[in-house]
Amino acid sequence: MQKINYQIFILVLLLAVSGRAMAQNYYPNGKQWVEKAEALKPKLTETIVKPTTLVELVKNEDAFQGWEAKNIAPIDSLYNKSIRQIKEVVVDLGDHYTGYFTFNLKTIWGAADSPVRFRFTFSEVPAELATPFDPFPGAISRAWLQDEQMTIMNVPSTNTLTRRVSCRYIKIELLGASPYFDFGISDIQFKALTSAVKQPEALAASTSPIVKKIDEIGLKTLKECMQTVYEDGPKRDRRLWVGDMYLESLANVYSYENHNLTKRCLYILAGLSDDEGYVLGTIFEEPEPHPQAGQRLMDYSLLYNVSLKNYLLATDDKATAEELWPVAKRQLDIIKNYVGDDGLVDYERANKEWWLFFDWKDGLNKNAAIQGLMIFALSETFDLAEALGKTDEIAEVPALIKKMKKAALANLYNTKTGMFACGDDQQISYASQIWMILGGVLNEKQSQKVLTAVMNTPEALSPGGPYMYHYLIQALINSNMQAKAKELLVNYWGGMVEKGADTFWEVYDPNNDFLSPYNFFPINSYCHAWSCTPVYFIRKYPEIFQQ
Amino acid sequence: MQKINYQIFILVLLLAVSGRAMAQNYYPNGKQWVEKAEALKPKLTETIVKPTTLVELVKNEDAFQGWEAKNIAPIDSLYNKSIRQIKEVVVDLGDHYTGYFTFNLKTIWGAADSPVRFRFTFSEVPAELATPFDPFPGAISRAWLQDEQMTIMNVPSTNTLTRRVSCRYIKIELLGASPYFDFGISDIQFKALTSAVKQPEALAASTSPIVKKIDEIGLKTLKECMQTVYEDGPKRDRRLWVGDMYLESLANVYSYENHNLTKRCLYILAGLSDDEGYVLGTIFEEPEPHPQAGQRLMDYSLLYNVSLKNYLLATDDKATAEELWPVAKRQLDIIKNYVGDDGLVDYERANKEWWLFFDWKDGLNKNAAIQGLMIFALSETFDLAEALGKTDEIAEVPALIKKMKKAALANLYNTKTGMFACGDDQQISYASQIWMILGGVLNEKQSQKVLTAVMNTPEALSPGGPYMYHYLIQALINSNMQAKAKELLVNYWGGMVEKGADTFWEVYDPNNDFLSPYNFFPINSYCHAWSCTPVYFIRKYPEIFQQ
Repeated sequence: MQKINYQIFILVLLLAVSGRAMAQNYYPNGKQWVEKAEALKPKLTETIVKPTTLVELVKNEDAFQGWEAKNIAPIDSLYNKSIRQIKEVVVDLGDHYTGYFTFNLKTIWGAADSPVRFRFTFSEVPAELATPFDPFPGAISRAWLQDEQMTIMNVPSTNTLTRRVSCRYIKIELLGASPYFDFGISDIQFKALTSAVKQPEALAASTSPIVKKIDEIGLKTLKECMQTVYEDGPKRDRRLWVGDMYLESLANVYSYENHNLTKRCLYILAGLSDDEGYVLGTIFEEPEPHPQAGQRLMDYSLLYNVSLKNYLLATDDKATAEELWPVAKRQLDIIKNYVGDDGLVDYERANKEWWLFFDWKDGLNKNAAIQGLMIFALSETFDLAEALGKTDEIAEVPALIKKMKKAALANLYNTKTGMFACGDDQQISYASQIWMILGGVLNEKQSQKVLTAVMNTPEALSPGGPYMYHYLIQALINSNMQAKAKELLVNYWGGMVEKGADTFWEVYDPNNDFLSPYNFFPINSYCHAWSCTPVYFIRKYPEIFQQ
Repeated sequence: MQKINYQIFILVLLLAVSGRAMAQNYYPNGKQWVEKAEALKPKLTETIVKPTTLVELVKNEDAFQGWEAKNIAPIDSLYNKSIRQIKEVVVDLGDHYTGYFTFNLKTIWGAADSPVRFRFTFSEVPAELATPFDPFPGAISRAWLQDEQMTIMNVPSTNTLTRRVSCRYIKIELLGASPYFDFGISDIQFKALTSAVKQPEALAASTSPIVKKIDEIGLKTLKECMQTVYEDGPKRDRRLWVGDMYLESLANVYSYENHNLTKRCLYILAGLSDDEGYVLGTIFEEPEPHPQAGQRLMDYSLLYNVSLKNYLLATDDKATAEELWPVAKRQLDIIKNYVGDDGLVDYERANKEWWLFFDWKDGLNKNAAIQGLMIFALSETFDLAEALGKTDEIAEVPALIKKMKKAALANLYNTKTGMFACGDDQQISYASQIWMILGGVLNEKQSQKVLTAVMNTPEALSPGGPYMYHYLIQALINSNMQAKAKELLVNYWGGMVEKGADTFWEVYDPNNDFLSPYNFFPINSYCHAWSCTPVYFIRKYPEIFQQ
């Protein structure tokens, strides 16, 4: 009787395990890949930052978003006083940091006969602190905003906020205290975390001050986003997205060289790919690694392949590239599923069945862009196959590239305007030109013509933010338009520098400080991975940027 | 060289230690007493409470403070739904508990792509939840109010609020969530804590239902306040006060019999007495045991002696009583310092140099009350000395008692009104009569006359709350007015029962639900130690209360 039960138990267990494996993993090694990724989880470097300055928020219409943080006193003027008298104060860490906030409360007179209550608000930029959060008009979770109430039962005490925050400024508001004792705040410490350890090389002495500054802020941005994965932004969304990882890993190759972080991200994305083997747009690390189920993000899935190729180039780690090769190969099926015999992507179906991101840009028609990106991904994946001696496994790719390029030119290129256009209204956008050039559809001369044309077309849909700007700079460089590439990079990222950026922003429109994809600018991320790529450009192309 | 340094080190250490000991401890064993108290710290009993009901707050002018919590649905109607749809809900634990709040968040669809934000408000009574806390008009710390915001980074997750709370009702408000996933709350658990373990004996079958109910609620009140010390109230102030301990330990003797808790409190108060050896009004356990320095509360210091005597009577633990005898003896010096050769307390000086509490009652003249309480403390301390065979150490006390009684009658008794009166306006108060009777200034017949007279004097200052009511009941019993004692106890505490009390309140005026010593009734404690004493009366005097 017992024996039979035991056998049934084993049978049920086997069925459960195999069922689970089948449901979760398209790849037989999926589970091990996640374990491999976990074993690569970096121990973060901790730096204790002590603020030195108090600031005051001052309205200033010339300042970014209309607010300036004005230095008003040294930190000791907080530490030497009663917080019951001060009530509200803004502390400046002096730069952007990601980590944990700790402070002491000390008694001035009396014994604490009650708890005390504070609100702490952490902000990356001044206007974020000066703008009331409620009533909250935003389109995403209010909980992203970094205001936290703390009830502290004992004074004196050392207190640490359990939430990791990302900030330069800390507003302290006393919300409750007893009249029967007095107390002060002291020894504010911010434990800053990063997995970027190595000191990147100095730029050439000949580099212009603005390029140096852009590089410095780009490095800082990247460093802040490098945590236990490549995060998109340490304030929000605090997680690994393929598109951000692609750009961060590019910049990492030329700066911090933490290749194990890239390796971890490649493994975790592979291990958490969906039940058809497609790499999902984003994954979460907590409470245990898991994907955003169902979030098929076509451009991101294809950029996984490019990231893997770049990882191999940077490290020569063939073992990893070979192990993950089936994932890259599988992503190509996305292209095969949506490209017809005519060499054209079925944009309508792709756009319905997947999320095509490309840019935060309302109304953008992504037909040409996805056609171009597919060709780019095919080329890069073929390069990867060549490096691994596996071209025979995707022997059809060169012909497919050729067909898709031809179809693109025949169907998406408007000979009259000399630019790519798509949709019924023949929409002209930077995105379309950029991705066709990155896909290698045009030769150098044609590329230059197309880029020049779009830059001379005011009604063309311009890049919505830094992410698309990256691809624009790359397209200019690929088209041998170095001067223009440098000019745009300096103008765009330099614009953020001039507006006082400590780190580069998720959203930047030189003409609209308040632009937000979430209907509330304070919830934008002001330290965002995809904006760090000047680091890559400046360091990969010293002949363009360090002269 | 090394040897010399070592000697200097030891010297400095000895100086530091002795300096510290001299500064802190009047009693040579003060430090060891605190250590003894710490060794007696009870391990709390934990009970997991799971709520079964949701309630709605309904205005009802017949209900206590105008609000009623109306049962509307079983808890499953919360657990089975999306909290994004519900947004706000009030959970009923079914009774008052003290401890820690835990809940699960579970995903309904999607993967959590953002943190979520809640406000939890914990209340002991319904109106506390229905009254906005801000702008806060109260005279003590806003932080006592039990509303806490929580940002929760992950769903699914199990979350525990780090703050210990005291409540029956829990309002849950969702303040932030993402539109891209849905989630629910489930498995709310409340870990209830107490150091009251023993099941008290059942009352006699003959006991009336209302007395049974009063006893039950009194027991609950005491149990909630018995934590690692006798707290005054588990919501507020959550700490040991001598006056509350005195009443709690009386009730404990007749119910939970956790005499070690009394012992711990006696030791900790002795060890943390001030640099002149006077027991301070209150001490704090965290972050390490420390007194409210300088808080000399004359009636409380003297009641320390009475508590020690009662502890000895209940336990026969002579070793403890002997060890703490010097403390009791020293408290008598308070009396000697303020009583003149005429046998009268120098009320003006005493009232200036100490806090005389007695009651929350505006305008109360405490001259007669402190004279009476001093005589009471002298008598009780002499009883203690007798039990320890130490009367020779305070041989002067009987004569002092006699002199003080005589002086009281000659100077504070108004023969015209037949009541004690004090101050220029010959103020008549219950407090004056009560404490003269407890001091044994009057014989039985006189006591009855005085109490009857004051109860027939509408302008007499009546007891401000349950603390003074305790002494009134005791004075009635001491005066052999059993029927009146029972009537008042049933009327007063029964009044709270009728108004729906789960535990007895810090403040109770039958005619004013909104009375608050802190200018804001929601901050009152609705489970307060000093209101638990019906337990003591009902069980100590079964012939009065259990018939």
